[in-house]
Amino acid sequence: MKLWDKGYSTDKKIDHFTVGNDRELDLHLAKYDVIASKAHAKMLGKIGLLTDDETKSLVDELNHIATSIDNGNFVIEDSFEDMHSKIEFLLTEKLGDTGKKIHTARSRNDQVLVAMHLYLKDELIEIKTQTEILFDLLLKLAEEHKDVLLPGYTHLQIAMPSSFGLWFSAYAESLIDDLYFIEAAYKVADQNPLGSAAGYGSSFPIDRSFTTAEMGFAAMKYNVVAAQMGRGKVEKATAFGMSSIASTLSKMAMDVCLYMSQNFDFISFPDELTTGSSIMPHKKNPDVFELVRGKCNKLQSIPNQLTLVINNLPSGYHRDLQLVKEIIVPAIQDMKACMEILTFSLKEIRVHKNIVNHPKYDYMFSVDTLNELVQNGMPFRDAYKKMGHEIQKGTFTPKRDIEHTHEGSLGNLCLEQIREKMKKI
Amino acid sequence: MKLWDKGYSTDKKIDHFTVGNDRELDLHLAKYDVIASKAHAKMLGKIGLLTDDETKSLVDELNHIATSIDNGNFVIEDSFEDMHSKIEFLLTEKLGDTGKKIHTARSRNDQVLVAMHLYLKDELIEIKTQTEILFDLLLKLAEEHKDVLLPGYTHLQIAMPSSFGLWFSAYAESLIDDLYFIEAAYKVADQNPLGSAAGYGSSFPIDRSFTTAEMGFAAMKYNVVAAQMGRGKVEKATAFGMSSIASTLSKMAMDVCLYMSQNFDFISFPDELTTGSSIMPHKKNPDVFELVRGKCNKLQSIPNQLTLVINNLPSGYHRDLQLVKEIIVPAIQDMKACMEILTFSLKEIRVHKNIVNHPKYDYMFSVDTLNELVQNGMPFRDAYKKMGHEIQKGTFTPKRDIEHTHEGSLGNLCLEQIREKMKKI
Amino acid sequence: MKLWDKGYSTDKKIDHFTVGNDRELDLHLAKYDVIASKAHAKMLGKIGLLTDDETKSLVDELNHIATSIDNGNFVIEDSFEDMHSKIEFLLTEKLGDTGKKIHTARSRNDQVLVAMHLYLKDELIEIKTQTEILFDLLLKLAEEHKDVLLPGYTHLQIAMPSSFGLWFSAYAESLIDDLYFIEAAYKVADQNPLGSAAGYGSSFPIDRSFTTAEMGFAAMKYNVVAAQMGRGKVEKATAFGMSSIASTLSKMAMDVCLYMSQNFDFISFPDELTTGSSIMPHKKNPDVFELVRGKCNKLQSIPNQLTLVINNLPSGYHRDLQLVKEIIVPAIQDMKACMEILTFSLKEIRVHKNIVNHPKYDYMFSVDTLNELVQNGMPFRDAYKKMGHEIQKGTFTPKRDIEHTHEGSLGNLCLEQIREKMKKI
Amino acid sequence: MKLWDKGYSTDKKIDHFTVGNDRELDLHLAKYDVIASKAHAKMLGKIGLLTDDETKSLVDELNHIATSIDNGNFVIEDSFEDMHSKIEFLLTEKLGDTGKKIHTARSRNDQVLVAMHLYLKDELIEIKTQTEILFDLLLKLAEEHKDVLLPGYTHLQIAMPSSFGLWFSAYAESLIDDLYFIEAAYKVADQNPLGSAAGYGSSFPIDRSFTTAEMGFAAMKYNVVAAQMGRGKVEKATAFGMSSIASTLSKMAMDVCLYMSQNFDFISFPDELTTGSSIMPHKKNPDVFELVRGKCNKLQSIPNQLTLVINNLPSGYHRDLQLVKEIIVPAIQDMKACMEILTFSLKEIRVHKNIVNHPKYDYMFSVDTLNELVQNGMPFRDAYKKMGHEIQKGTFTPKRDIEHTHEGSLGNLCLEQIREKMKKI
Repeated sequence: MKLWDKGYSTDKKIDHFTVGNDRELDLHLAKYDVIASKAHAKMLGKIGLLTDDETKSLVDELNHIATSIDNGNFVIEDSFEDMHSKIEFLLTEKLGDTGKKIHTARSRNDQVLVAMHLYLKDELIEIKTQTEILFDLLLKLAEEHKDVLLPGYTHLQIAMPSSFGLWFSAYAESLIDDLYFIEAAYKVADQNPLGSAAGYGSSFPIDRSFTTAEMGFAAMKYNVVAAQMGRGKVEKATAFGMSSIASTLSKMAMDVCLYMSQNFDFISFPDELTTGSSIMPHKKNPDVFELVRGKCNKLQSIPNQLTLVINNLPSGYHRDLQLVKEIIVPAIQDMKACMEILTFSLKEIRVHKNIVNHPKYDYMFSVDTLNELVQNGMPFRDAYKKMGHEIQKGTFTPKRDIEHTHEGSLGNLCLEQIREKMKKI
Repeated sequence: MKLWDKGYSTDKKIDHFTVGNDRELDLHLAKYDVIASKAHAKMLGKIGLLTDDETKSLVDELNHIATSIDNGNFVIEDSFEDMHSKIEFLLTEKLGDTGKKIHTARSRNDQVLVAMHLYLKDELIEIKTQTEILFDLLLKLAEEHKDVLLPGYTHLQIAMPSSFGLWFSAYAESLIDDLYFIEAAYKVADQNPLGSAAGYGSSFPIDRSFTTAEMGFAAMKYNVVAAQMGRGKVEKATAFGMSSIASTLSKMAMDVCLYMSQNFDFISFPDELTTGSSIMPHKKNPDVFELVRGKCNKLQSIPNQLTLVINNLPSGYHRDLQLVKEIIVPAIQDMKACMEILTFSLKEIRVHKNIVNHPKYDYMFSVDTLNELVQNGMPFRDAYKKMGHEIQKGTFTPKRDIEHTHEGSLGNLCLEQIREKMKKI
Repeated sequence: MKLWDKGYSTDKKIDHFTVGNDRELDLHLAKYDVIASKAHAKMLGKIGLLTDDETKSLVDELNHIATSIDNGNFVIEDSFEDMHSKIEFLLTEKLGDTGKKIHTARSRNDQVLVAMHLYLKDELIEIKTQTEILFDLLLKLAEEHKDVLLPGYTHLQIAMPSSFGLWFSAYAESLIDDLYFIEAAYKVADQNPLGSAAGYGSSFPIDRSFTTAEMGFAAMKYNVVAAQMGRGKVEKATAFGMSSIASTLSKMAMDVCLYMSQNFDFISFPDELTTGSSIMPHKKNPDVFELVRGKCNKLQSIPNQLTLVINNLPSGYHRDLQLVKEIIVPAIQDMKACMEILTFSLKEIRVHKNIVNHPKYDYMFSVDTLNELVQNGMPFRDAYKKMGHEIQKGTFTPKRDIEHTHEGSLGNLCLEQIREKMKKI
Repeated sequence: MKLWDKGYSTDKKIDHFTVGNDRELDLHLAKYDVIASKAHAKMLGKIGLLTDDETKSLVDELNHIATSIDNGNFVIEDSFEDMHSKIEFLLTEKLGDTGKKIHTARSRNDQVLVAMHLYLKDELIEIKTQTEILFDLLLKLAEEHKDVLLPGYTHLQIAMPSSFGLWFSAYAESLIDDLYFIEAAYKVADQNPLGSAAGYGSSFPIDRSFTTAEMGFAAMKYNVVAAQMGRGKVEKATAFGMSSIASTLSKMAMDVCLYMSQNFDFISFPDELTTGSSIMPHKKNPDVFELVRGKCNKLQSIPNQLTLVINNLPSGYHRDLQLVKEIIVPAIQDMKACMEILTFSLKEIRVHKNIVNHPKYDYMFSVDTLNELVQNGMPFRDAYKKMGHEIQKGTFTPKRDIEHTHEGSLGNLCLEQIREKMKKI
């Protein structure tokens, strides 16, 4: 039951090798193939290649298939190469020759491409939404813990006072940058490629503006060769966006793992979120955060994986492009799982108070004291000498009630402004 | 002459290892350090940490330094660790203690960060401009050669008629997608990080809105920890954008190299742009395009390089981040060189006519003939049989005057619409 | 049913996220966990921590489990976290408290590590064997087609005469280089890590020399911290080896796809190995080779994926390391599938004769003619002029019966010597 | 002054773009071009293509050039494309027509390839030697500090007792694994490619066994196409080896940075090796180790960079391959610099005593106590309960004089056996 069936049985070995795990992946995409098929059928009706009756029966039948997909009843048996074969089979089984007419003026390449664009649009919106939820949580936590001080490190050396307010909201503001790339990926995906056929267009007078509007694309990928070259490219665009978010989550997870170590002991989580041992009661293994870190680091490898597969291929379709699907679809699932579990877990974070009261953090207050002397008129050089002297003699008393007032500092987090910036996306 | 000089001479070995090629790279960035220093000085004046006279003399002196940089007279001797040391030295040499005051309420980390943001903004604009020039050329070439047919390949097998019009403008339209990422990178860069100091802000009442406006940033990176975490991130954002353009240029270069092979023989270039041999007169080696391809493939490795360097580092500054500069600065130079030489060379392209008249391309016209039969009312199945029969008997005569009319097809390139899409960025 | 079960039910969300697809992957590894468990049990018996009866019953029961794994009857239900939990459950179900004693003086980390070493050893041998089969086939094809000339390209420009003998055996000899890396990976894997426990050894007087010999390891990974640091490292060693083979296969697949293009037309394959269309009878899509190319390119991304996951993690176990398994196991399956299908398909290759008789290949014989003049005593400069003159006037007649005699040239392929080199590995 | 000079002046733009930084890189390789040229000249003499006098004068002149390279007097002016042009110019300047004869029966491609093989052989030996020096130092440090305990972490949680003996020697033993890859790379490099000419051999009866022996190669890369395909491949082999070492050094540097943090405070270094501030006297920034970490992480990107450049190129030379040189040569310099500075710095490490006496490390001794109870006959389950009870009640007293006796444990480091394993390489 292959679209390129030529009448002789190709060797099963080949079959198994070439089909791969397409059927499984296609369950994520089938919904979008149906949407595109409906738009295509309506268009064929509009330009007179289908009668109104044919169009209606195709659309009705496609709606049935859509329902079966939504209900989880859609199955791609081993006898079908992929979702396209299965859907065409269902249409033909029900509608006979009319079912076959759906394939007029399009190619399978076309179908895969447009389904991928529609799929990525939905997933990018989902990722954006999840990012916003995490963003909101981080700002809430920043507000809640804004007065709890935290040592700030440079070179992993205790350096300057920081705060949980700063720490939480830093990751929130960083996520905004990541969303610029999700937004860019969305623009790439939000262009209708349908009509490129095998990559060089068609002699049928298809109406691509109609399908563009019908499927809700903001723009058309006009040039049919460009549309075809989008295979691999639109997935890489998505991967850039995800990679950007992943780098932010990974860094935060690294901080969490470090801060949970008994040598830092800045935060903790309820037992349900950690693993441990009753004979080592201090041990609270941050498995969830380690896996978020690891998975997000793996996600950062996706753009390169895609590049390796598509690189140095001349223009035009090559079967290598099929592999792009098995790279991007699981990556998207991983991305969403990481964001969900991170949001779920961070809600339960327990922030430790009075961390900076420990004497080992004394010297991180010295810069502020120095600045105060300078602001009160003492020349920097003299102030510096005085401080060094006091510290050496052991008479330096850290002033822990620090006051930072400028925008974005620990005394003035500008959470509202950060929220405004997010809203502009 | 180091900013962190502690009074004893650190071992030269260490010095050599840690400074690396910073001085050389800083020549690209010095201009921006001066811009940021002027803004900082004015701000210090505004909030009363400098007198008007001090501010004026600092700004004047910084203007002199800016001029020396513009003139190519600025040199960073081996006795200076980097541009920041050199510039501070020049200010102090001229202005004495006033020169030192420029460093009030900022840190070197601050300086590197803000200079990088300003530098990347300028380079991203330059890259965008060069992309637009290439885009315009490609559209011009598409218009010029729109009627010259070209075989279209799938699986590297002769498949369907294409055209030079399609080929040139496909790359033009693809560049638009790439610019979405340049645009995203620009948004990341166009945020003022100055004021993060060592990464945790300052107890001085600095006015970050003032410096944001003074340096022409569209937004502030509010959170000081987020601002510091931008190191590596803003460079990676830029690398994503360049990697995207590079993948398009690399693919086009691959096509060019293939099409120049005697086995395709679709295009050629004047002798000045190729290398060859007088005893093998057919040989026209496309060195320029091979190097564009190779360099653009190397450029696609930059995001991963940056990720490897910054990955799994907890928040806060680490010296590893210094290495980011030696990755991104040469990459930007390579990117611009590739775009320039590609534009320069493509202008001279010679498109071969009558390619598709060769009999080996006959069958690629069969699909159009088939479609015509279908459009004239013959059922697809019958038409397909008829065609197969004719081809087998050798009576199939390809109709080479093909007519594709839909949007984005070879008969309707939509160059104007593509140009409109570009303008919206 | 978790090894770290602490008496309270951890949230299912967490469970699902942390377990991932471990159960599925563990089916590849279970066999090796049993082998290691048997060795461990015998060792515990030897040092007196188990009685002889306990040891015997554990070994017997593990043999039963081994049989069920071999028969495909071993299942890891959702109620078990992984194979280790399942196997321990089976032992305890059958043997009660004795079953639990198997875990004396080892940790789960230990088990995963030693099972991975044993698994990789087997798979590396399998990969080596498959490489040798492909190597033999390539040499056979080289011998068979050694007299069929092929154009040799530089810069994709027709350059010098080559031959199928050269082409096939070039890939054979390249595979030898790749095997040096498989060999290195094998040396890394062939060291017994068992006994590192949680990564810092044990206070039990375990006998690691005994288990090393019992499991057939050539060496011990002595240092327990080094043994633990092997997680990720032994997989990356394997990935380097596979990446090396993959680059060779990918290049060959690229050649095949190019040579099958009608514009080259050097080789073909029976219909069963290609896909096509009856109205475009020339079209023989090389899907198999495109997928080999694509999969092998993806395989070349594995070392980087692993690096991203393990990079910048301090020493000691982190849960991130669990992800290494889901990267390496499917990669190994892909590697073997590519080698198998490539060997299967190459057997059917049809080499076209008389390719170089086409006039477009005339000039590639000019260098040999020039060399002949030089060997007959004409100064190079004069010979070059004479040739250039003839070619320009169109009087150059290519001498197609070329004679290359030096080692490794098309007239002297040295297949026996290449075979000898392979044997030395 | 180009080898492919065709009589017309190619555009300077092109020139600048194509030559790149070849001249600078060639200073590393010139020595090896001379060695190969001498071998080639002698071989041409042996087969009668040069007279004895010609051979002698060429070899003498090449020896002069070798001396000038050794003395640092060899310069490649801008008027020369690369070292090959310059050397040929020098020979011709001195010897007239005889100078030109050196190029008989070889091509520039040949020269680049064989010089690279020779260069890499030398550098790989240098890298191996440096690794052995570091290995010896690590074993010496392990021996010296074998009794100083260190907390061992899992999940960055305090877990089990470790020691500096274990820590230092773990990195030593890991380096052995890395050397297996250096060894594999050496085998790839240690094959003579000279004689492949433009990649397809030559009609001259060259004697490749002679040049193989003359240059000291262990083997010949027989097949001329395989020899040419070595470009990129031999560099990637080297990059795999370096990447492997780099991952070990990077991990160790990460540990060092963490252990120097005041939150761990396990080790320190003299002021000369750190940077700091007199008003924050605790601050000892580990810049050297951060840069080792960062550079080693960047080094781990090299295999992927090379893959991206050479991937999906059909067989035969392409100009892209020139870029391989600018990737591998600086990487080798970085690798050596990292090993040198790390060895230099580690010599000065100060190991802190009594770390584990701090109460926060108490519980990490609980597993050993538990094991002792078990060894003394208490059933594990009872022992576990007893321990849990004591810990909960606060009556647990850690026994800090732990005794681990098995091979590779902290009480039995097996340094001699590790040294033996190293010697076998």
